Amino acid sequence: MNHLGARMTRIAPGRVHIVLPSRPELTQQHGYFHAGATSAVADSAGGYAALTLFPASSDVLTVEYKINLLAPAVGDHLEAVGTVLKSGRTLTVCQLEVFGVQDGGRRLVANGQQTLIRVDRPEE
Amino acid sequence: MNHLGARMTRIAPGRVHIVLPSRPELTQQHGYFHAGATSAVADSAGGYAALTLFPASSDVLTVEYKINLLAPAVGDHLEAVGTVLKSGRTLTVCQLEVFGVQDGGRRLVANGQQTLIRVDRPEE
Amino acid sequence: MNHLGARMTRIAPGRVHIVLPSRPELTQQHGYFHAGATSAVADSAGGYAALTLFPASSDVLTVEYKINLLAPAVGDHLEAVGTVLKSGRTLTVCQLEVFGVQDGGRRLVANGQQTLIRVDRPEE
Amino acid sequence: MNHLGARMTRIAPGRVHIVLPSRPELTQQHGYFHAGATSAVADSAGGYAALTLFPASSDVLTVEYKINLLAPAVGDHLEAVGTVLKSGRTLTVCQLEVFGVQDGGRRLVANGQQTLIRVDRPEE
Repeated sequence: MNHLGARMTRIAPGRVHIVLPSRPELTQQHGYFHAGATSAVADSAGGYAALTLFPASSDVLTVEYKINLLAPAVGDHLEAVGTVLKSGRTLTVCQLEVFGVQDGGRRLVANGQQTLIRVDRPEE
Repeated sequence: MNHLGARMTRIAPGRVHIVLPSRPELTQQHGYFHAGATSAVADSAGGYAALTLFPASSDVLTVEYKINLLAPAVGDHLEAVGTVLKSGRTLTVCQLEVFGVQDGGRRLVANGQQTLIRVDRPEE
Repeated sequence: MNHLGARMTRIAPGRVHIVLPSRPELTQQHGYFHAGATSAVADSAGGYAALTLFPASSDVLTVEYKINLLAPAVGDHLEAVGTVLKSGRTLTVCQLEVFGVQDGGRRLVANGQQTLIRVDRPEE
Repeated sequence: MNHLGARMTRIAPGRVHIVLPSRPELTQQHGYFHAGATSAVADSAGGYAALTLFPASSDVLTVEYKINLLAPAVGDHLEAVGTVLKSGRTLTVCQLEVFGVQDGGRRLVANGQQTLIRVDRPEE
């Protein structure tokens, strides 16, 4: 997400917020964020939220996710919130929310659910 | 759901709770509720939650849902909570939660997301 | 599924068919199968399909599934087909199809996708 | 998808293939396509498949999709196939498949399911 200009703005155990500022290559002709950008920032927020509950030697991979696109993703930036619903030994399940933020207003534009699997990085 | 002994216990605009008491035909050999019973009560809670925001002449059909089974569905009863995330003219999107309730304890056993379509009942 | 009268009609590596005859307690006022019955038979077909690729000492649990209800589930019986898309060491992903069968006609009434986790039964 | 270099390679009623060549900004450090790119090309293939069954004055919006990431998305290019499962008056349901293609080999790397809603473009 770095090369898209995304940055983590809040990190707590089991919850991560990621902000993605609007950029021409992320938006359509009407200034809406592409569904692909909305999904990608949601997926990342869930992945990082899962990682907050594991030691640094662990990594996670997305097994699957489902997302409802509720409203046009309009805004100066998107704010994605990933929240861990269940952190198991092997699998983590997260709730995903994406808000369009503009002029101080904040509107839910997408909502999803994600399953991740923990993988341990090979020691170096 | 009636013939299974389910009953609505709380109704508010955009939110409905349904309780499903344990019965032998709903549970497996270990006393867990079947995934089918867990899903059915979640689906119903979402459908009724959607209906709270429509006039009585409207009905809804489930277009699709996705559910994560987070933990064994153990309990004296299940409590499903359907919450409307977006109520549009045609489509409604709901969050679905199912809790296993036993001895005063309440544990999230399933979490899902559902899309419904509004249909108008023919006038009589 | 046994107590509902369901039976496996075809078993091949990675694919299982389950037939569920119509019964009053599975259908609504219009004779359609309940969404809960449709989902349950789909979920079972996927689970058994996953098991065909494992030794008998393994079991599977449904992690999550998503299902689209495409048409009213009308028929003398439902036929659910579970097909393994990927069989991994830990996770299996299946496609789920449910057909309504009546008078020789066969119509796709639901389509879904399911993730399962392998668990090894404790030795006795 | 144009600015990413994606192009439609096959169009038939109810089915569209889209090819996305590998590019540095679409891949991770290991040369895998990002999950976001995989999802976006799948979503597009389904949307265009839905459109093949409508008059030119109609457009579609993605209501929701669910995708399983089955294997690392490795390849010279991705090939996404969107196939209409049900084309209704209001809603369309598509199956989504994404293959990684390399050296003539073709491997299923993601599989999904999508719901779209038809919207009619305002006349000009």
